[in-house]
Amino acid sequence: MASRICDSVLVTGSNRGIGLELVRQLVDSPTPPVQIFAGCRDPNGQRSQVRNHANTIQKSLTYTTSPTSIAEASKLVETKLKGKGLNLIINNAGVNIPGSLAETGKQEMVDVYTTNVVGPMLIAKDFHPLLCKAAAQFPHQTSMSCSRSAIINVSTLLSSITTCPENFSVSPMYPYRVSKAALNMLTRCLSEDLKKDGILVMSLHPGWVQTEMGGPKAPLTTAESISGMMKVITSLTEKDTGTLLDWEGKNIPW
Amino acid sequence: MASRICDSVLVTGSNRGIGLELVRQLVDSPTPPVQIFAGCRDPNGQRSQVRNHANTIQKSLTYTTSPTSIAEASKLVETKLKGKGLNLIINNAGVNIPGSLAETGKQEMVDVYTTNVVGPMLIAKDFHPLLCKAAAQFPHQTSMSCSRSAIINVSTLLSSITTCPENFSVSPMYPYRVSKAALNMLTRCLSEDLKKDGILVMSLHPGWVQTEMGGPKAPLTTAESISGMMKVITSLTEKDTGTLLDWEGKNIPW
Ligand SMILES: NC(=O)c1ccc[n+]([C@@H]2O[C@H](COP(=O)([O-])OP(=O)(O)OC[C@H]3O[C@@H](n4cnc5c(N)ncnc54)[C@H](OP(=O)(O)O)[C@@H]3O)[C@@H](O)[C@H]2O)c1
Ligand SMILES: NC(=O)c1ccc[n+]([C@@H]2O[C@H](COP(=O)([O-])OP(=O)(O)OC[C@H]3O[C@@H](n4cnc5c(N)ncnc54)[C@H](OP(=O)(O)O)[C@@H]3O)[C@@H](O)[C@H]2O)c1
Repeated sequence: MASRICDSVLVTGSNRGIGLELVRQLVDSPTPPVQIFAGCRDPNGQRSQVRNHANTIQKSLTYTTSPTSIAEASKLVETKLKGKGLNLIINNAGVNIPGSLAETGKQEMVDVYTTNVVGPMLIAKDFHPLLCKAAAQFPHQTSMSCSRSAIINVSTLLSSITTCPENFSVSPMYPYRVSKAALNMLTRCLSEDLKKDGILVMSLHPGWVQTEMGGPKAPLTTAESISGMMKVITSLTEKDTGTLLDWEGKNIPW
Repeated sequence: MASRICDSVLVTGSNRGIGLELVRQLVDSPTPPVQIFAGCRDPNGQRSQVRNHANTIQKSLTYTTSPTSIAEASKLVETKLKGKGLNLIINNAGVNIPGSLAETGKQEMVDVYTTNVVGPMLIAKDFHPLLCKAAAQFPHQTSMSCSRSAIINVSTLLSSITTCPENFSVSPMYPYRVSKAALNMLTRCLSEDLKKDGILVMSLHPGWVQTEMGGPKAPLTTAESISGMMKVITSLTEKDTGTLLDWEGKNIPW
């Protein structure tokens, strides 16, 4: 029997795109997590596809990036976990907007940063006690893994400062690139900070995927991307904390 | 006779600390720039030291990070340049705040990002026409340099995602580190974007310096740091666009 990815997982931005497929594949895995929290800020929103899959999704909760509602979401999850910890958070919710220099102003920079960086920071902070609890409950307390306690921040190849010159001209995207490089630093800080608690933290690039954000020309279906991501997620150990990997497990330079 | 660093330069955050010393050393250089614009949001503010040096500073202007005032500052500079371009911008204004995870919330993250990243982005955008004009007026239009047209973003060693594990525990500083990694991506995007215009863009780490931000335990005086930075600034060529160097010209990994 395949071993369970983890007992409990929260996936943000799961009403459509990569987040929705993540939740579906978690549910369909040989031994699914006992509790799957599908974070959606508006499950009934116009573009939401989560309704069509409501039967396959065991639990769901609502959250937004406003500080109070993330705190509320953590309380809700805590109640539903009935004294147990939360093993895994996948910070998947994210936003991109057209972003040439001419198209970019203060508002665009701050809005994208708030969703892509401040959101994951507040989630890490507010769910920290539940992650610590999960790490402490794990039988093999010397190792790190997603089955014990982990945060995965969904980043992108475009977050790489090193490789920026290779792809800048085809997709300038100032607010997005700048926010995702910032997210990588958040990942790196959290991975250092939470080592003492046994919590693994890393950034994962899903590839270029057919979603509303990725567009129809993307080479990967959500199914392909997420089955790769699932393999990576289950294979992570302490050597991977603080890294940026892609959906095939390949390292991306900062 | 030593050659002039450049004809015109704008230094932001020049009422105290590193910015003030930058302006002083520019003024005191063997052949000082013809026009030095000392950007201060509040030249008469409580901590401002620029008053004590008013005689040594030829020109000064006021700006803040609000979008309208940066645009206003660019108009003022344009008027004072009387048809000429602006050669060099040193985006030095910056802020740091105590930043453990417990101390950091949405407000802290957004405020520090706004000053350290959105400010330099708006300055690059609003002064872009003046930088282009300077680049076009330069006699040797194939080369890049600070005497022709350049943006220097004052970054920090703590912006390095690569070396974060070496120094995180002594200075967590979430909002600052995350913002300066974001600033490095801005540098890298701008350097790609503005290559076509002949504008050099790079990030410069001043070292750990005795200022209000650096504190009294810092090993470097502003005089030492800035005389190193001046050497680096005058030596920059097109091979340096898109890099992160320290005050001694050494490369820092992203
Ligand atoms: N698709 C790609 O090719 C690609 C490549 C690299 C990285 N990524 C990353 O993968 C992640 C998912 O992208 P995707 O392609 O699935 O995008 P998507 O189809 O546009 O879906 C984005 C998801 O994020 C949620 N979201 C956006 N802003 C939010 C906010 N302020 N608060 C809460 N939720 C918010 C959306 O919810 P609503 O429906 O309520 O808006 C939606 O569930 C993102 O982090 C993205 O940067 C994608
Ligand atoms: N000191 C170090 O050891 C060190 C090390 C690495 C990097 N740095 C970088 O070097 C730069 C200068 O630092 P410093 O040590 O000179 O710091 P400082 O002594 O604290 O001076 C900061 C300067 O930035 C200005 N400033 C801050 N927020 C601003 C805003 N929102 N709008 C406009 N101006 C603003 C301040 O003006 P007000 O007086 O009006 O506040 C002041 O002129 C910063 O970018 C910093 O990150 C410093």
